[in-house]
Amino acid sequence: MINPETIWRDLSAVREKGPLVHNITNFVVMNVTANALLALGASPIMAHATGELDELLGIVSALVLNIGTLDSGWIEIMGTAAALAGKRGVPIVLDPVGAGASRLRTETSLALIQMQRPAILRANPSEILALAGASGVTKGVDSTHRPDEAEEAARSLAQKMNCAVVASGAVDFLTDGTTDVRISGGSPLMPRITGMGCTSSALVGAFAAVATSPLEAAAAGMAVMKVAAEMAAEKSSGPGTQQLYFLDALHGITKEDLVRRLKIS
Amino acid sequence: MINPETIWRDLSAVREKGPLVHNITNFVVMNVTANALLALGASPIMAHATGELDELLGIVSALVLNIGTLDSGWIEIMGTAAALAGKRGVPIVLDPVGAGASRLRTETSLALIQMQRPAILRANPSEILALAGASGVTKGVDSTHRPDEAEEAARSLAQKMNCAVVASGAVDFLTDGTTDVRISGGSPLMPRITGMGCTSSALVGAFAAVATSPLEAAAAGMAVMKVAAEMAAEKSSGPGTQQLYFLDALHGITKEDLVRRLKIS
Amino acid sequence: MINPETIWRDLSAVREKGPLVHNITNFVVMNVTANALLALGASPIMAHATGELDELLGIVSALVLNIGTLDSGWIEIMGTAAALAGKRGVPIVLDPVGAGASRLRTETSLALIQMQRPAILRANPSEILALAGASGVTKGVDSTHRPDEAEEAARSLAQKMNCAVVASGAVDFLTDGTTDVRISGGSPLMPRITGMGCTSSALVGAFAAVATSPLEAAAAGMAVMKVAAEMAAEKSSGPGTQQLYFLDALHGITKEDLVRRLKIS
Repeated sequence: MINPETIWRDLSAVREKGPLVHNITNFVVMNVTANALLALGASPIMAHATGELDELLGIVSALVLNIGTLDSGWIEIMGTAAALAGKRGVPIVLDPVGAGASRLRTETSLALIQMQRPAILRANPSEILALAGASGVTKGVDSTHRPDEAEEAARSLAQKMNCAVVASGAVDFLTDGTTDVRISGGSPLMPRITGMGCTSSALVGAFAAVATSPLEAAAAGMAVMKVAAEMAAEKSSGPGTQQLYFLDALHGITKEDLVRRLKIS
Repeated sequence: MINPETIWRDLSAVREKGPLVHNITNFVVMNVTANALLALGASPIMAHATGELDELLGIVSALVLNIGTLDSGWIEIMGTAAALAGKRGVPIVLDPVGAGASRLRTETSLALIQMQRPAILRANPSEILALAGASGVTKGVDSTHRPDEAEEAARSLAQKMNCAVVASGAVDFLTDGTTDVRISGGSPLMPRITGMGCTSSALVGAFAAVATSPLEAAAAGMAVMKVAAEMAAEKSSGPGTQQLYFLDALHGITKEDLVRRLKIS
Repeated sequence: MINPETIWRDLSAVREKGPLVHNITNFVVMNVTANALLALGASPIMAHATGELDELLGIVSALVLNIGTLDSGWIEIMGTAAALAGKRGVPIVLDPVGAGASRLRTETSLALIQMQRPAILRANPSEILALAGASGVTKGVDSTHRPDEAEEAARSLAQKMNCAVVASGAVDFLTDGTTDVRISGGSPLMPRITGMGCTSSALVGAFAAVATSPLEAAAAGMAVMKVAAEMAAEKSSGPGTQQLYFLDALHGITKEDLVRRLKIS
């Protein structure tokens, strides 16, 4: 059972242990996701040199792969990192940015999944639909479908891939194929800030290092996103200030904030 | 005739349609320009893999090329993207960062222009002078000339290249070779924030997707920069806070803000 | 003798001259360090194309090398830049991010030092220990040792390499092998913001362009970091707002701020 208590326990564990989270992510969000991990209490590593992947994967607690600014070199690196993580039992979070917007993105995402099963797949509904083989046509990297349309696709993917799947949106839908979780709240300003989806994937990575199941990790990551976004929105005057107050909130979030604000079902 | 009314119409169109703007830009400003496009109401795509350029250029409404952190790989990618955009009739905005500071930058800019005529060239006066074959020596990527010195060069370039040219500065000078536009205002803090020139190029790209002419698109982009910068400066206490209030202002700018604040002639 | 007076003199010189600082740095911090240099009053160049390094190093006043997101291509570029800087007498600041966390990082740092002596090495204690051949095991790119443990290692490195060495932390330890300087203050929020170490290296680079010795440049850079961080902390509500108020403070810092707040010994 996932609830504010389990999420608070996981958040406390992240803050106490400061797990190292290895991110191989896109150029647009590297800074943002590193800052979000630091604000949460985790320690980000952003590194992609083939010659050090094996050593680094030996000291980290989670690997986040994000294909946002993929090219042939980075695809190869992500494949190598996924395989090494698999060998070492390091949980992988995959963010298939833009799957469906180009064949390259859809195929790369599926190839990475096939190479090494991720613990958690975090995507928007269009990307989920594209990966599920549905006829989803995505508008760039933003979502053109609502979460409820993608729930069936997410459940099928979770069952087929044996992992937790998050279809994020105004209401986040999470499933491990058996149990479903829905999280709402947040702020309408969040889609007006680049990298907030990528950030949620990174935070899920931090929780994957401490949670007792992939679904619990996914729920904790999405929950602190929603709660911190809502806290930030009470102070912000637009997407610029929202960004910063979001990091402040992520850093300062208390058990009471979780209990009072979290809308989970 | 470009005035607050036409600019408001274009801004409303961007907010309503949310045009996809494809950016192949430098590492320093990817996050900043994506956020500015989102705050404006457009949808950024940041992607550079050769294997997906054709597909992506089939769904976007404008292409912004920025050579800020160019290298041989990225130069080739930008050339490919420019040619594909030309075939599809996607308008190109070129930002020749640092032209004049190195031969590589000057030559790359000219080669990209020759490969495919941009709709709009947005640069600082030194870069304009360098590209116009004047003896401009730039001090890095910052401008060492004042806009008025570069007006003649901008006009000549616009006529020769058959595009709109923006020489940006304390007073922005815009021309399509026949009609000139000058926009002033803004904030002296803006040159103390990295990527604000690159951001204006990205915003011009969003307007190129909806405006009736390249000059109108350029004017709309530079106008909202100046107005949002001025609005931000009333709240900021330095270049850090100015960055964020600028995004807030860009997101919240009203017709009244444009009418009251825009200094255009 | 380094004191608030010498630091104010150096800061005034940076603001007056606006020295060009060439950064070959990691993807995570490019934006942040460029903004910090601009806020300080310097002019950043972020460029790495082999074909323009010689020209650019002919117009800049300092070179900052940072191996944060190194790979084989960037290592080669940094080596070329270091050699060209050496030929031209451009002072180098080296930031060996993550030395000790992987062999690649330790070896690359040492190879760069061997290729061309840096004027200043700025690192955290673990990186200093790793480079000094101590048994330092780093936890990612964050420090797991306290500055005082690394003081001996820093002094040995400074003597062997004939450069100034900074082991930064809650108390920064600076040495040229003969004279030691300690700077304290700042804010506990700074380690919760990515790239603040990298930013201090960049600022030291700006000061290397105007100071009378590497140790003086290092002290000025670390001093304005601590003072601006402390000023920011008085206004911030977490790591997000701290980032922005830090840039505001860096931009606005006065002689009185330095005299009143600087803790140097």
